[in-house]
Amino acid sequence: MQKKQLIECHQRITPFIHRTPVLTSHLLNKIAGVEVFFKCENFQRMGAYKMRGATNAILQLTKEQKGKGVVTHSSGNFAQALSLAAKSLGVKAYIVMPSSAPRVKKEAVKEYGGYIIECAPTLQARQAMAKKIEDEKGATFIHPSNDLDVIAGQGTACMELLQEHPDFDIVVVPVGGGGLIAGTALAAHYFGDDCTVIGAEPFEVDDAYRSLKSGKIESNDTTNTIADGLKTELGDNTFPLIQKYVEGIVRVGEDEIIAAMKLVWERMKIIIEPSSAVAFAAVLREKELFKNKKVGIIISGGNVDLKNLPF
Amino acid sequence: MQKKQLIECHQRITPFIHRTPVLTSHLLNKIAGVEVFFKCENFQRMGAYKMRGATNAILQLTKEQKGKGVVTHSSGNFAQALSLAAKSLGVKAYIVMPSSAPRVKKEAVKEYGGYIIECAPTLQARQAMAKKIEDEKGATFIHPSNDLDVIAGQGTACMELLQEHPDFDIVVVPVGGGGLIAGTALAAHYFGDDCTVIGAEPFEVDDAYRSLKSGKIESNDTTNTIADGLKTELGDNTFPLIQKYVEGIVRVGEDEIIAAMKLVWERMKIIIEPSSAVAFAAVLREKELFKNKKVGIIISGGNVDLKNLPF
Repeated sequence: MQKKQLIECHQRITPFIHRTPVLTSHLLNKIAGVEVFFKCENFQRMGAYKMRGATNAILQLTKEQKGKGVVTHSSGNFAQALSLAAKSLGVKAYIVMPSSAPRVKKEAVKEYGGYIIECAPTLQARQAMAKKIEDEKGATFIHPSNDLDVIAGQGTACMELLQEHPDFDIVVVPVGGGGLIAGTALAAHYFGDDCTVIGAEPFEVDDAYRSLKSGKIESNDTTNTIADGLKTELGDNTFPLIQKYVEGIVRVGEDEIIAAMKLVWERMKIIIEPSSAVAFAAVLREKELFKNKKVGIIISGGNVDLKNLPF
Repeated sequence: MQKKQLIECHQRITPFIHRTPVLTSHLLNKIAGVEVFFKCENFQRMGAYKMRGATNAILQLTKEQKGKGVVTHSSGNFAQALSLAAKSLGVKAYIVMPSSAPRVKKEAVKEYGGYIIECAPTLQARQAMAKKIEDEKGATFIHPSNDLDVIAGQGTACMELLQEHPDFDIVVVPVGGGGLIAGTALAAHYFGDDCTVIGAEPFEVDDAYRSLKSGKIESNDTTNTIADGLKTELGDNTFPLIQKYVEGIVRVGEDEIIAAMKLVWERMKIIIEPSSAVAFAAVLREKELFKNKKVGIIISGGNVDLKNLPF
């Protein structure tokens, strides 16, 4: 992907997204021993950066494609993002969700105008159902992370961060399907000044860490993490970009994720979801790595179930 | 108090406080049916606007007074604010707290460097103990709300709000001891363009509402509200300012406070304390009053016990 594509992507989506603020905390800097800048995508529309990629992907469709709608499979933030982006642009969004998805997730998608199609809770079933919608409705499938237009969109958060602070040494982001880190790495490559990108992943779902070691896309046998946005795996578009542009991945434990999340809630008074806390937990864990650096963190989202908090 | 005093106060405290952001939410505007701007004092140092008044009061002391320290009685945000402001300015802070105060409140004061003196949980006991500290240590007593320097300091939040948006029709703030609303009313009077100030109070502690009706300072027989920052009563400095400059007070129920708090947490992804939610609850309750107005709300603070949430 070229620099020009990212610039055009940002111009394209700007009318439909929020320019989120960059916040800092003296106290958290003191605790982390490093100067950290939080790009608050928890304040993004629908509460997560996924709004960027979803919007870009829909805006790239032809008029005819838009008329037939879009389809994705997701029970997380991308389901909500595609629903809201589609609604904002007058497009129909079909969301394939496992029948076992929490009621609160289904309600959120419905609220944003998404049309839910339930399927059995397996990868095969959701792929088959998405394919069926593509065939029957002529809807365009948009993958939550492994789609170049989605990746470009997600990269615009880091572009904005670097517009405000061109001198970051390191930008840290959580890694799930890899859309955010791939886009961030492209943005850092084109717009940063020797800015490296580091991923953060729970030990419990360290497929990206292992993928970088082995040189091929690895899976997770289990996904016992509180960071529910990071359970997905890399794809054939995200992985090569991560291999080429990402410096490394720091893994963190579940307790560290919860502690980092609590620190941000208590000290910064902002609501971040566990997946977002993974990036700050990585900075707290690897203090030597970040020492004397200027560090940016993309707070990926703030969608939590307040009835089910880990503290 | 003159306009000049407020301007000088703001200049005096600016190096020691955060300039907090003003946030908005399309979704909350839609729900409230009115355009609302939230001045986020939950992002203030130590998590509440009280930092402003405490800092101003200490900065007004003579060198000799500063050498002998300051004393207050509070188990809430002012205890923490005076502790941190004093610490920042190299002054000793004695905080008289009832022995029954929650451990988490005591810990917070200690963390900010305050020196806690416990007393029996009665108004008489805490006043007597504060007097004792004044006499024995030569410390200067600073009242949490009924002090003109504190009032001026609290008014600077509204000054900043009006600097960014000079055209507010109404500014809404919660009312406890009256320091915030008295300062806000002064700021709106001097810096607003026909900007009225409305207070918000729980039905359970509607002493200010009743005081405005009766023309004298009323008390609360009981204080069964979740808005723990609003249990205190008006004083002889705050009440006359409120009588002169405040348009009226809207009362809200406990369920409304909790619902407003939850809305802000879920939709804006910011942590506000119950006392702050009272102001937004008032806007949600009295939709006709605020219709077609440009409304500012001062989010007074974000200090909550995450282990003890009302939802």
